[in-house]
Amino acid sequence: MMNYDTNLVPSYYDVTKEYFITKLHVKRQPAVLCGIDIGPCVEKWTSDYLIEKSGSTIVKVHVGSEANMNFLSKNFSYKTLTFEQLVKRSKKKIQDDNDYFFSPKEYYYLRSLSNERRGKQVANLKTDFPELADDVKLPCFFADEQFFSSILRLGSLGMQMWTHYDVMDNFLIQVQGEKRVTLFSPSDASFLYLDGDKSEIVDIDNPDLNKYPNFVKATRYDCLLRPGDVLFIPAFWFHTTQSLSFCINVNVFWKNLDAHFYEKNDYYGNKDLIPASKMLQAVSKAMNNLDSLPKDCKEFYAKRAIRLIEKTLEDNEKSADKSSSK
Amino acid sequence: MMNYDTNLVPSYYDVTKEYFITKLHVKRQPAVLCGIDIGPCVEKWTSDYLIEKSGSTIVKVHVGSEANMNFLSKNFSYKTLTFEQLVKRSKKKIQDDNDYFFSPKEYYYLRSLSNERRGKQVANLKTDFPELADDVKLPCFFADEQFFSSILRLGSLGMQMWTHYDVMDNFLIQVQGEKRVTLFSPSDASFLYLDGDKSEIVDIDNPDLNKYPNFVKATRYDCLLRPGDVLFIPAFWFHTTQSLSFCINVNVFWKNLDAHFYEKNDYYGNKDLIPASKMLQAVSKAMNNLDSLPKDCKEFYAKRAIRLIEKTLEDNEKSADKSSSK
Repeated sequence: MMNYDTNLVPSYYDVTKEYFITKLHVKRQPAVLCGIDIGPCVEKWTSDYLIEKSGSTIVKVHVGSEANMNFLSKNFSYKTLTFEQLVKRSKKKIQDDNDYFFSPKEYYYLRSLSNERRGKQVANLKTDFPELADDVKLPCFFADEQFFSSILRLGSLGMQMWTHYDVMDNFLIQVQGEKRVTLFSPSDASFLYLDGDKSEIVDIDNPDLNKYPNFVKATRYDCLLRPGDVLFIPAFWFHTTQSLSFCINVNVFWKNLDAHFYEKNDYYGNKDLIPASKMLQAVSKAMNNLDSLPKDCKEFYAKRAIRLIEKTLEDNEKSADKSSSK
Repeated sequence: MMNYDTNLVPSYYDVTKEYFITKLHVKRQPAVLCGIDIGPCVEKWTSDYLIEKSGSTIVKVHVGSEANMNFLSKNFSYKTLTFEQLVKRSKKKIQDDNDYFFSPKEYYYLRSLSNERRGKQVANLKTDFPELADDVKLPCFFADEQFFSSILRLGSLGMQMWTHYDVMDNFLIQVQGEKRVTLFSPSDASFLYLDGDKSEIVDIDNPDLNKYPNFVKATRYDCLLRPGDVLFIPAFWFHTTQSLSFCINVNVFWKNLDAHFYEKNDYYGNKDLIPASKMLQAVSKAMNNLDSLPKDCKEFYAKRAIRLIEKTLEDNEKSADKSSSK
């Protein structure tokens, strides 16, 4: 078994908007909010009800034969189904004869897209699943103009998402089933072997420590969501979810920073903030300068560049200490 | 006592030009060359002789009251002396009453500059100390057109140079006295807490490991130079020298890479290669993009940038493996 730090995400009961804004949101730490009124969906959204209401809706779904879906090696395909087919299949451990894509045992994951312009407009429960939307009361713990998207998510038993971050704060609302969510602080980014916004470590419970030795330095934050629970995931917190049963979630994103920081064409809430994206592009381009140099020089100067950035981090830290001690 | 890896720099006897070029230079590892004919300087350069020949030459010298000279905190001053005064003072443990700059116990270090245009032209023993130059036979282990500079160095007892790298290959010729040189591979750059081309760790024998924990991961290479020894210091190898007695050295630099890589106005042989310098400037500028972001975002994206560079390093490694296995 792994020997690394694990913490439980703290739970809070009957949190008010004011308490959330003044006490929880400012902490920039994940929190499970229990006992919030999220509407009748918790009671109403049985499989039969979902099928009755939205069964004929066409959805695009991630399907794979491995429980750990991995965006980097793309061990899944996108398939188009009716919502009825998806719900029925997602509840089965083994699919019916000849009624599967890859293998009798396969995993399904829906992340709803905008009905109007799929992938070119943000998802919104109200317009994408109007027949279900009224059953959900989104926690209004932010100003209306900060609202970004509301997404219906469905995961079949065992399905596990790759570890990644989003650039906006969000609430993950557990409507049906049980879900384990594991989070890592943005300050542990160095230990997660990132490729863009995703970790290369596919199975965080059994990581290859020869390949990813620094992963043991990362601190896990775990929680188990039950129907009615709302998980606050602050922007830039890495997270991976595992559906411990058939799961239905609603996920609400909002702009927690000034609107001008966000990319205009970010439909998923995961495009890097504009200044950061510029920086990353410039750094990537800067590295091309080394192409003409011998391999050992290239390596050496790449390390010099890393040190240069570490020093800007240290200076950032020092200037923050100074201004806080004023 | 420190518990880190130490290695001895290997010594080679009666090395020919061909052996150096085909066997040693290509290794990119430091080496002590013993028994090379470096001319009559080893016998001739007594203090009296040096004073007789060059005593009236005006030299600019680093003077400090701490043995460890530190370029980052500048614990020394530049003072102008005659070469006679410098030689006489450098041989004394305690200076005569009232004949010192800071304290009776002080340290002296000369790195000769061009006589013609000090600090605006490379040092050349032939023109800067013509009355001494004929006593030295520089090892001609590189082509004439690669020659860059020849520098006279003098260190008083105990004087220790800061750990730094140069961008050209060079021979450090020990003419008088004994000198300890400690080197670190360019691949250990990440463990040396660099500020530009210099390590922040002033006392490598008693480092502050709370401040510099990764220093234990660096591998030391030590050697002791005796009169007549020639140390090959490959470009980018970090090095620090300690004069175990009054020391006189001649140091020869040459361009080991294609001439177009070097800065035109590099008079000391330590300005970063042009493509690398461009890269470092671009990375530094790129980081300014983060200024408008909140502190935690800044930190997060700095780590993303570090990871991006690590990945270019990994890709570099992989493509090298591929081409070598062809």
